[in-house]
Amino acid sequence: MEPAAPGDAGGREAWMGEAQAIGERARTAARALTAANTNTKNAALRAMAEGLRTGAAVLLQENAADIADAKKEKLSAAMIDRLTLTRERIEKMARSIEEIAELRDPVGEIIEGYVRPNGLAIQRVRVPLGVVLTIYESRPNVTSDVAALGLKSGNASILRGGKESLRSNLAIHRVLAEAVQGQGLPPDAVQMIDNPDRDLLAALLRQERTIDVVIPRGGESLIRAVAEQSTIPVIKHYKGVCHVYIDELGDLDMAEAICFNAKVQRAATCNAMETMLVHKNVAVRFLPRICRRLTESGVELRGCERTRRIFPAAKPATEEDWYAEYLDLVLAIRVVDDLEQAIDHIARYGSSHTDAIVSEDIRRVQQFVRDVDSSSVMVNTSTRFSDGGEYGLGAEVGISTDKLHARGPMGVRDLTTYKWVVYGNGQLRT
Amino acid sequence: MEPAAPGDAGGREAWMGEAQAIGERARTAARALTAANTNTKNAALRAMAEGLRTGAAVLLQENAADIADAKKEKLSAAMIDRLTLTRERIEKMARSIEEIAELRDPVGEIIEGYVRPNGLAIQRVRVPLGVVLTIYESRPNVTSDVAALGLKSGNASILRGGKESLRSNLAIHRVLAEAVQGQGLPPDAVQMIDNPDRDLLAALLRQERTIDVVIPRGGESLIRAVAEQSTIPVIKHYKGVCHVYIDELGDLDMAEAICFNAKVQRAATCNAMETMLVHKNVAVRFLPRICRRLTESGVELRGCERTRRIFPAAKPATEEDWYAEYLDLVLAIRVVDDLEQAIDHIARYGSSHTDAIVSEDIRRVQQFVRDVDSSSVMVNTSTRFSDGGEYGLGAEVGISTDKLHARGPMGVRDLTTYKWVVYGNGQLRT
Repeated sequence: MEPAAPGDAGGREAWMGEAQAIGERARTAARALTAANTNTKNAALRAMAEGLRTGAAVLLQENAADIADAKKEKLSAAMIDRLTLTRERIEKMARSIEEIAELRDPVGEIIEGYVRPNGLAIQRVRVPLGVVLTIYESRPNVTSDVAALGLKSGNASILRGGKESLRSNLAIHRVLAEAVQGQGLPPDAVQMIDNPDRDLLAALLRQERTIDVVIPRGGESLIRAVAEQSTIPVIKHYKGVCHVYIDELGDLDMAEAICFNAKVQRAATCNAMETMLVHKNVAVRFLPRICRRLTESGVELRGCERTRRIFPAAKPATEEDWYAEYLDLVLAIRVVDDLEQAIDHIARYGSSHTDAIVSEDIRRVQQFVRDVDSSSVMVNTSTRFSDGGEYGLGAEVGISTDKLHARGPMGVRDLTTYKWVVYGNGQLRT
Repeated sequence: MEPAAPGDAGGREAWMGEAQAIGERARTAARALTAANTNTKNAALRAMAEGLRTGAAVLLQENAADIADAKKEKLSAAMIDRLTLTRERIEKMARSIEEIAELRDPVGEIIEGYVRPNGLAIQRVRVPLGVVLTIYESRPNVTSDVAALGLKSGNASILRGGKESLRSNLAIHRVLAEAVQGQGLPPDAVQMIDNPDRDLLAALLRQERTIDVVIPRGGESLIRAVAEQSTIPVIKHYKGVCHVYIDELGDLDMAEAICFNAKVQRAATCNAMETMLVHKNVAVRFLPRICRRLTESGVELRGCERTRRIFPAAKPATEEDWYAEYLDLVLAIRVVDDLEQAIDHIARYGSSHTDAIVSEDIRRVQQFVRDVDSSSVMVNTSTRFSDGGEYGLGAEVGISTDKLHARGPMGVRDLTTYKWVVYGNGQLRT
């Protein structure tokens, strides 16, 4: 279950006034945040973490009410698990905020600076984006993570979570807003939308004058609806259909370990392998061993004809399987003639998320790296490493499969832009 | 006159097939361009320049036909001037392409690279965006400039110019396509839309599967219509309402020279000053001299009440004047109480393009630089320097007042994105 998609043009009109007011409050707060120094922001973050700990009893109580409703509405066990807060999970949320406080402040960094022949000193200086609208589903920890990342990077946040976790989110938000205010920062630096009406969301997506970017997190249909309707730039990834290609010159022991890790270590993540592509010249040697091991771990295999000739226990793959993001213990397998066919397959069916090659041959690796147009390209390692933490970015804002602004795992730096600052002493243009 | 705005949802449906085919041809060409090395791209660029020179007679002939039509349709003299090609203008187009050939190739640059504790070597490598759709008005030189910038950065271009210059553009395009093919690059690396139907444009704006970015250049209403309809990310600037603020601690001789330069040197550009803000404590000393000088140069002044008390020849400014992008010898003038009021004025009425302060006081300069949220902030120099060439970027792709991806003047680098490349030797995630 995901947050309801935004409403249509008719419904949103009634909400335009309220959406505009929310945007303007955020814009005003954002202007104040520009002037906040790192110590103040970090103090607010640490107060947020402490607030979650001391307020844990209230959070658990509100969360219990959400869970009771969820059970009444017969939501799935997986869904209820995602929704559930425990003392341990609250402690994890607090620690995550403290880690964000430890990150280097991206604001103020001089990205480049140089002096022009006429003496103008030109600098590109990193500044906050301004106002970030995040739309997400039912995990309450996203509320504190996203607010903390926004504050660290000097942005005002507008948070719109799933309605099934609304009471938990509002309780978390009260803690965050108090911490922010306690440091003299504007409380509107973190706003929580308490009305789940999808037409209000639709109206928010038209506030391009005051909101700088929308980050939708959730299922593909929600994200597509947001991208379709928003007049504000959207950073997103629709899905992760990640491939591992086993080249004929690959180390097959390494290939087996990588494929097993990429599929089984955590199958429900967007960077798990969904399709395995195997060079025809190693298929007979490689497929039986990896297929047996995957099957033993409960993975359902769906193979092309050539795969099934070698490992008949695999079910036949259909055209849809090549496009599928299973997020589960299911794997599509295809035997390919050569590297080019693997690259073409990825271009056609892939999602530009993360794709890997296993090969000892430098030319083939170079060609794969150059020609696979994905946000992350892995060489002789698992697709599961495609992650902000693993890349050393600290807490992850999300993953972008867009090409503009930020691509792949995004950290706090990706919640910033730059301004050009030009220092002169009276230069005139001639 | 600007290119017709895109059509509506009803009209575009008939064109979706053709738009899809155009996008897919560009995508295929873009994949081939990824593998083209810098020497090949530069050779194609030099051949383009030579082709324009040797084909000048044909270009002038086709251009004459466009001009004859424009006269029949009674287009304005300014419009016909923009449309007109001469031998000198063609030579300038050729030289501009040769300058682009001289630029450093942004593709392949390793933006950052580091090794993680587990031995993974992580690189962010600059790569082409892919396919760029540029929508522009009647200047035929944009056709060659945009195609050259696209090719240099490894992108396939789809060009959609104004219908009044269609024959000129098609003639230029034939030259460009031949040059590209002559170097063994795919001719679809540069496609020119030869059908001015606005519903086809609307259909192109829905090809987010194959087109990576849209750059609309033209009047504000066109750009708004494109941003509204496009499901592809758009990089744009609506307008340039640039301010110069004269602080009470500013050098008034310098201020006079800067304001005169910013308004008069080329009034029709987006980085010309449109509103002058003057601190009340220097208004009596500063306004008479600058107003007299501007008036003598034919500038029409529209002032607030306090301005008109000091310089009564100024016409009264209305609320609309503060929002106005005159692109002409007209200037709005407002006396402000202090720096904060100047900053608030810019936040309320500005366009986030370019704003300047003239002050000798470091604290006020620092506050202005921090709190004015514009793509370029100038200190003691003219807003007219806000330009890719003046910033040393080489030929300019355009100016962005958006915050995502690129902000302010954009060069070839801004037609690229990056991919993460991760080199391992069998690392697994645990």
